Amino acid sequence: MKIPVVKSWAETAPTLIAVAAGRAPADVVLRGGTWVNVQSRELLERHDIAIAEGRFAYCGPDASHCIGEATQVIEAEGMFMIPGLCDAHMHIESGMLTPAEFARAVIPHGTTSMFTDPHEIANVLGLRGVRLMHDEALLQPVNIFTQMPSCAPSAPGLETTGMEITPEDVAQAMAWPGIVGLGEMMNFPGVVNADPKMLAEIAATQGAGKTVGGHYASPDLGAAFHAYAAGGPADDHEGTGEADAIARVRQGMRSMMRLGSAWYDVESQITAVTEKGLDPRNFILCTDDCHSGTLVNEGHMNRVVRHAIACGCDPLIALQMATVNTATHFGMEREIGSIAPGRRADVVLSSDLRSLPIERVIARGVTVAEGGAITVDCPHLNWPEDVRRTVRLGKRLEAADFRITAPAGAESVTAKVIGVVENQAPTKALRAELCVEDGAVTGDEAADICQIALVERHRGTGKVVNGFVSGFGYRGRMAMASTVAHDSHHMIVVGTSAADMALAANRLGAVGGGITVWRDGEELALVELPVAGLMSDAPAAQVAASADALVRAMADCGCTLNNAYMQHSLLALVVIPELRISDLGLVDVTKFELTTLFEDAE
Amino acid sequence: MKIPVVKSWAETAPTLIAVAAGRAPADVVLRGGTWVNVQSRELLERHDIAIAEGRFAYCGPDASHCIGEATQVIEAEGMFMIPGLCDAHMHIESGMLTPAEFARAVIPHGTTSMFTDPHEIANVLGLRGVRLMHDEALLQPVNIFTQMPSCAPSAPGLETTGMEITPEDVAQAMAWPGIVGLGEMMNFPGVVNADPKMLAEIAATQGAGKTVGGHYASPDLGAAFHAYAAGGPADDHEGTGEADAIARVRQGMRSMMRLGSAWYDVESQITAVTEKGLDPRNFILCTDDCHSGTLVNEGHMNRVVRHAIACGCDPLIALQMATVNTATHFGMEREIGSIAPGRRADVVLSSDLRSLPIERVIARGVTVAEGGAITVDCPHLNWPEDVRRTVRLGKRLEAADFRITAPAGAESVTAKVIGVVENQAPTKALRAELCVEDGAVTGDEAADICQIALVERHRGTGKVVNGFVSGFGYRGRMAMASTVAHDSHHMIVVGTSAADMALAANRLGAVGGGITVWRDGEELALVELPVAGLMSDAPAAQVAASADALVRAMADCGCTLNNAYMQHSLLALVVIPELRISDLGLVDVTKFELTTLFEDAE
Repeated sequence: MKIPVVKSWAETAPTLIAVAAGRAPADVVLRGGTWVNVQSRELLERHDIAIAEGRFAYCGPDASHCIGEATQVIEAEGMFMIPGLCDAHMHIESGMLTPAEFARAVIPHGTTSMFTDPHEIANVLGLRGVRLMHDEALLQPVNIFTQMPSCAPSAPGLETTGMEITPEDVAQAMAWPGIVGLGEMMNFPGVVNADPKMLAEIAATQGAGKTVGGHYASPDLGAAFHAYAAGGPADDHEGTGEADAIARVRQGMRSMMRLGSAWYDVESQITAVTEKGLDPRNFILCTDDCHSGTLVNEGHMNRVVRHAIACGCDPLIALQMATVNTATHFGMEREIGSIAPGRRADVVLSSDLRSLPIERVIARGVTVAEGGAITVDCPHLNWPEDVRRTVRLGKRLEAADFRITAPAGAESVTAKVIGVVENQAPTKALRAELCVEDGAVTGDEAADICQIALVERHRGTGKVVNGFVSGFGYRGRMAMASTVAHDSHHMIVVGTSAADMALAANRLGAVGGGITVWRDGEELALVELPVAGLMSDAPAAQVAASADALVRAMADCGCTLNNAYMQHSLLALVVIPELRISDLGLVDVTKFELTTLFEDAE
Repeated sequence: MKIPVVKSWAETAPTLIAVAAGRAPADVVLRGGTWVNVQSRELLERHDIAIAEGRFAYCGPDASHCIGEATQVIEAEGMFMIPGLCDAHMHIESGMLTPAEFARAVIPHGTTSMFTDPHEIANVLGLRGVRLMHDEALLQPVNIFTQMPSCAPSAPGLETTGMEITPEDVAQAMAWPGIVGLGEMMNFPGVVNADPKMLAEIAATQGAGKTVGGHYASPDLGAAFHAYAAGGPADDHEGTGEADAIARVRQGMRSMMRLGSAWYDVESQITAVTEKGLDPRNFILCTDDCHSGTLVNEGHMNRVVRHAIACGCDPLIALQMATVNTATHFGMEREIGSIAPGRRADVVLSSDLRSLPIERVIARGVTVAEGGAITVDCPHLNWPEDVRRTVRLGKRLEAADFRITAPAGAESVTAKVIGVVENQAPTKALRAELCVEDGAVTGDEAADICQIALVERHRGTGKVVNGFVSGFGYRGRMAMASTVAHDSHHMIVVGTSAADMALAANRLGAVGGGITVWRDGEELALVELPVAGLMSDAPAAQVAASADALVRAMADCGCTLNNAYMQHSLLALVVIPELRISDLGLVDVTKFELTTLFEDAE
């Protein structure tokens, strides 16, 4: 598919000049609205905006001279004319949607620019996967810029990804048209220890004049934090408190504050501006991760801006944090993020600056949504067939693959158990006494301990790593399997019954990936995610409905967790403490090393 | 001469990280000062700064862990640690100094970054002249970035420059290491009329991801202004009132407010921030043009910041306007403009934030000035010999060359007279009745009218264009000549005596350019400007002393104007109304066309 090219300012300049000068008619004129001027931080009532060739040509008190017979005049009286909203850091895969379907879901919410890091697909398909995401992104009627993933694997030596990303990959990607920088540098111990591979990726990005994304997921604001800042990351979205936000800005980084489906880091940090009075220019809003349900039911960047305002932020400043601040950060302030001549004509019309209803969305001069409904096509890439066949189990799994054999002669064992903590990403490294029956160890329903398995799914090795997990509350004979399994995205199977675990795993092998719940040999729910085992190219509402059914099925099996399937998907995330599982074994993330399942085996 | 390369952040990152982490010693530590944090807009007392390999490695509460045996520790208690000051728009040639001597003059004033447009030398020597300025700039111990001149000639068809600048030149220059963008786009009617040559220069600059400098020298904020903004210039320094500043920022341009030797545009515009409360991020301070006398006696960017504060601007905001705002504008915020890890270690130590004494200047980690005295070398380029021989008269000029012949048979004539206006750049187009003697017209001392001549000096054509000028107050038999003659820099001779005019002109031909005053056949003063006829490579104090002597000589001849030699040098500036002189004749700048000297000749 040929990727449409957005005409540059230079290409359209003769037309823009002619329109502004009154020598040629505009394509579209918005008339009589309140210009939300994020450059000067002013509200300018009764102003007009003229658009030509997808860019702003004239913004001022009276565009009468820009109106010709063919000009579409949109009356904007009573409306705020707001620059299209920007999401400064996000992962499309978190919505379990392809870029096209993600765009379709968020455009009606006023998002017209996204800075995305396709880190998940990079783990499955490497540079090729990133390129496919990048290409579909460029097909969309809104701006989806790509950050080149930096850390696949994110924990070398502790897991095996489907593919790896190298500094050479990064250097190569910097020349792609839609690449704006390096995706979040999660390997912060690598930077602090001056790991040559990580520094080479940063250097390639800086050398291309692009932005290095940060990810410093530690509360330590001492020497390690300063060393990380000295390494080059230009932003960070991992702060959770006011001190984190302030520290980042003082170090010359931009503080990205996120409100995702399960991230609530705006309220605790925005006080740096609202109470401490810091210059707001270096604070930015983002989502990081949104489930399709959030997109369908709650919104996207409009939800974040609304929330920031509810936290006491001046509406104009909150809007700057979702428009011009973001554009400036990525060196794109002459391209997006404000309503001013030459920029891409991305405008949101809203009748109220606090509740922020999104009445009309214009992107590149075209009305792309009205009254919450999308009015344009979001083209799908013709995804190659093999991208839909990434779940390679190598064999038909049996209950025996999930049998955990006890040490010879043992009647009971002390096992390490991954302890899920409600509403938190870190797990606890628990210990439990478990009985041995017929030489095997299973879970303990009374103690809320069941089995977990990591099934290798990239290379078809047939390898299964078994362990124990606690916290889901599962009862009876059930299993849940998911190929969304951060960061290397093998398959995580959690269950109380080895037979159901095998059924669930085989099911995902058959459909090319997704999430499924089984009980007593029957499937209760299935979310199909055929694209790399991570995404669906069905509409968001459909995916959200499947996900809802999945959550209900989990609840039917006894699970009471919030964000239950997200908790499931994070159990192999071997960069976040304390205990995780990977294709190489059980991982002690307090020490960043592999460990044994049974205590007495050490 | 080999140009030293500033090591990039990427090259120094391993060291910076090691220093910040405490694994390696810093080269320099500033201890216990008040960190002027322009990112967060805070004053942070009792903080330390560690520097390594010319860049900031650690900025925080305690750099003890960065200090080794060889670390130079500078006690900064009681001092404000301010980012090195940036001049966002300036012409080095205005100081009549080469880049090296200009740097030597301004470094003790705390200026560590300059964004220079070598527009004057471009008119004399074309792209080669720009390259020479660029190369000497890169030799300096501070940051002198070059903007590629855009408009030589600035008024095609109304004057002949020594050399022209083409869009191909612009495209070529964009690849030079020190080029940050396009110099001020003075041909604003060209942009408004979509002149393909001007738009090609802008396109080449935007295509290289660099900044397009603006120059909209008109009070009209209507359609023409909007068309200019739509053309692509990203800043403008020609505003003179609050409405100008606000209009530019609303249009997504940055408003540069200047305090030069003869520009006073800060006080009248900064009220946009201090009274109207606009977001200050898009306001920037600059000098545009400073004479060597100003640099020697008053200061440079410290003078501008001090002035902005005296105008009621919060000191921290004023400092942002001379540091981080400038850096962000040029896409260099990760390189200069703030004290934060990875940036070039440019710091000014000052004991008072309002009076702004400059006690110590550090550039790239090296102390470059202390107590007002420079402590480093500012290397000179080995300027090619022919660059010192650019005044080509083609012949020895005689009094007869300055004879103005009256129309045959006339006893008196009505002549057009260029009327100099005190403290203003625009001239008045005056009319005067002048007597004819022996078939020739001379001036009229009683009416303060004397002769002016434009002597072609680039190609040795021997051409002299004669006219009349009023306002200098010259008495007796005198002449003054200058090869600083904006923008095409031929030679302007003003005098009451044709014989002295010839002597003055020939003198400049002999010394390779400069400014000279003659009376009764004797030289009263001479400023030698051998480099392209525009600059001296003598120290600023020496040039300032010569210029002082020149001003005294002008006064001795009766001149009472402020900025007298600047007024002289602007008389050929055929882009500013109303009446000017060029090598092609008298120019009516209200109509942008050539005109006749005598009224009745039309």
